[in-house]
Amino acid sequence: MATEESGVKRLGEEEEKNNNENGVTLAAETKENATTKPDFISSVIPGWFSEISPLWPGEAHSLKVEKILFQGRSDYQDILVFQSSTYGKVLVLDGVIQLTERDECAYQEMITHLPLCSIPNPKKVLVIGGGDGGVLREVSRHSSVEQIDHCEIDKMVIDVAKQFFPDVAVGHEDPRVNLHIGDGVAFLKAVPEGTYDAVIVDSSDPIGPAEELFKRPFFELVAKALRPGGVVSTQAESIWLHMHIIEDIVANCREIFKGSVKYAWTTVPTYPSGLMGFMLCSTEGPAVDFKHPVNPIGANQDTCKSKGPLKFYNPEIHTAAFCLPSFAKKVIDSKTK
Amino acid sequence: MATEESGVKRLGEEEEKNNNENGVTLAAETKENATTKPDFISSVIPGWFSEISPLWPGEAHSLKVEKILFQGRSDYQDILVFQSSTYGKVLVLDGVIQLTERDECAYQEMITHLPLCSIPNPKKVLVIGGGDGGVLREVSRHSSVEQIDHCEIDKMVIDVAKQFFPDVAVGHEDPRVNLHIGDGVAFLKAVPEGTYDAVIVDSSDPIGPAEELFKRPFFELVAKALRPGGVVSTQAESIWLHMHIIEDIVANCREIFKGSVKYAWTTVPTYPSGLMGFMLCSTEGPAVDFKHPVNPIGANQDTCKSKGPLKFYNPEIHTAAFCLPSFAKKVIDSKTK
Repeated sequence: MATEESGVKRLGEEEEKNNNENGVTLAAETKENATTKPDFISSVIPGWFSEISPLWPGEAHSLKVEKILFQGRSDYQDILVFQSSTYGKVLVLDGVIQLTERDECAYQEMITHLPLCSIPNPKKVLVIGGGDGGVLREVSRHSSVEQIDHCEIDKMVIDVAKQFFPDVAVGHEDPRVNLHIGDGVAFLKAVPEGTYDAVIVDSSDPIGPAEELFKRPFFELVAKALRPGGVVSTQAESIWLHMHIIEDIVANCREIFKGSVKYAWTTVPTYPSGLMGFMLCSTEGPAVDFKHPVNPIGANQDTCKSKGPLKFYNPEIHTAAFCLPSFAKKVIDSKTK
Repeated sequence: MATEESGVKRLGEEEEKNNNENGVTLAAETKENATTKPDFISSVIPGWFSEISPLWPGEAHSLKVEKILFQGRSDYQDILVFQSSTYGKVLVLDGVIQLTERDECAYQEMITHLPLCSIPNPKKVLVIGGGDGGVLREVSRHSSVEQIDHCEIDKMVIDVAKQFFPDVAVGHEDPRVNLHIGDGVAFLKAVPEGTYDAVIVDSSDPIGPAEELFKRPFFELVAKALRPGGVVSTQAESIWLHMHIIEDIVANCREIFKGSVKYAWTTVPTYPSGLMGFMLCSTEGPAVDFKHPVNPIGANQDTCKSKGPLKFYNPEIHTAAFCLPSFAKKVIDSKTK
């Protein structure tokens, strides 16, 4: 979310000219947008992309831009893709970095394998959000999975990912994937009770199109869609920056999910504060011990050359992800006990 | 280390004026420096401090500056202290953030308690670097410790910390601390063999005054200064950014330290890539199992109101810190086996 705080400069005419000289390429469907000023780019250093947001006031991470590859506006959000000088290609939604080729493995592997390795033989999985395809790529490593329903609100994110991030969007190609373009809340309302073994919510931040995915009614629908002892994993912000948001999510989940409710985190250099948290919950039924995975992935993964090997996840880092610094443990434990 | 890469702007006259309007205060001893241009400040956003370095090319973390509190040049490095808008006061050496009040607990507690909680009853501890006093503050929580030798090359860092970071510099006040201003290598050469139970090396990056502290001769001197089964902890950069540096450190340590050689890491939002690694080694002698602490701290810590409670460290996060993502585990294990 770009802001106009004092001291923050929008991408000006000079930088736009430079970018064009560097060779801006634009997908056909957004040519109309391309002729307007790309004022959604919160560039504060000439030639660099800087991530400014009211969700992390007073700090900004910047990446040097080699070339802008795509910029457009969908029905829901601004979409930007650029080639960075040291993090590979970068996908930005509403001014916030969603993934870079260099570190996307951490987020995609952890948000997916933390839930799927915590239950035996997951068969039916629902992915909400994650239009880039990275979570689908990870789900598809599990050979036990028979059905992957995918609900993404913004088709343009999928199209852009397929064009610019083939190693991530490869997840869309799995024949087990059923794509539904639409709102996650509406989709869940139509799901028969107890349908899924696992639900993975790969959303953007709670400002913008993902706002509803952080609220109580959404979690109630997720719980209903899960079988007894089914699991959900959602992105749940940073313990350094968003303890107030996390407190609310944990308190809601504790009331809604009658099995386990745990918070985990992983390092992701290009996310604010350098980490990302996950909320892991299970419904009443067969007990789920999230800290001790029962469904190992690795040697027996459904390997496919186009997907490449796991880069980040292993059983040790799975367990370690649930260990919290004392300042966060104190707050989260007070809500989960 | 500020650079003049294309697209990177030094602090200009306009920004300097803004800073002065915000109320620049300068310690008496550096008034002479204050009249010259503060060209070491790698500010790329007016009113913001941006951390640019050849050690992390193509990216920069920026903090919004409320007020510059100190800027000077010691015999060794440029020193800057500013009040940030959301991370409290910030200490910067040669353009690189060393600590912020908001997240210093993570680094100080982990680099100290990972080694000291891994051996029973540490009595003699040497701290090299760490002029801010934070590591001393953490060492002094251990009531078994009788002697804390502290070797810091730059007295100005200590003076600045005492003036602007009283909650960190409180470590200097412990009566067990013996301060030696001087070079760490020279200090170690004069230490009788087998003197210390633990050595903690809290250095800046391997460009600048700390360069020697990443080299083989330094580690050989540390090993000699430790008792059999003694432990060392050194800052060892980021697995996301500096795998080549880490590989060298690990390979050297494996040859020099005949006990355990392990790599650990922790989240630190204001360090590049959002994390910091540590090299933990022990000398031949009583076995040290770094992953399983034998000397718990917490309830029985030497509590002192001026130090406040532990904010970050606990036994679970101690063990978790040694779990590495697969991409890092592969490289590090190949050097440590």
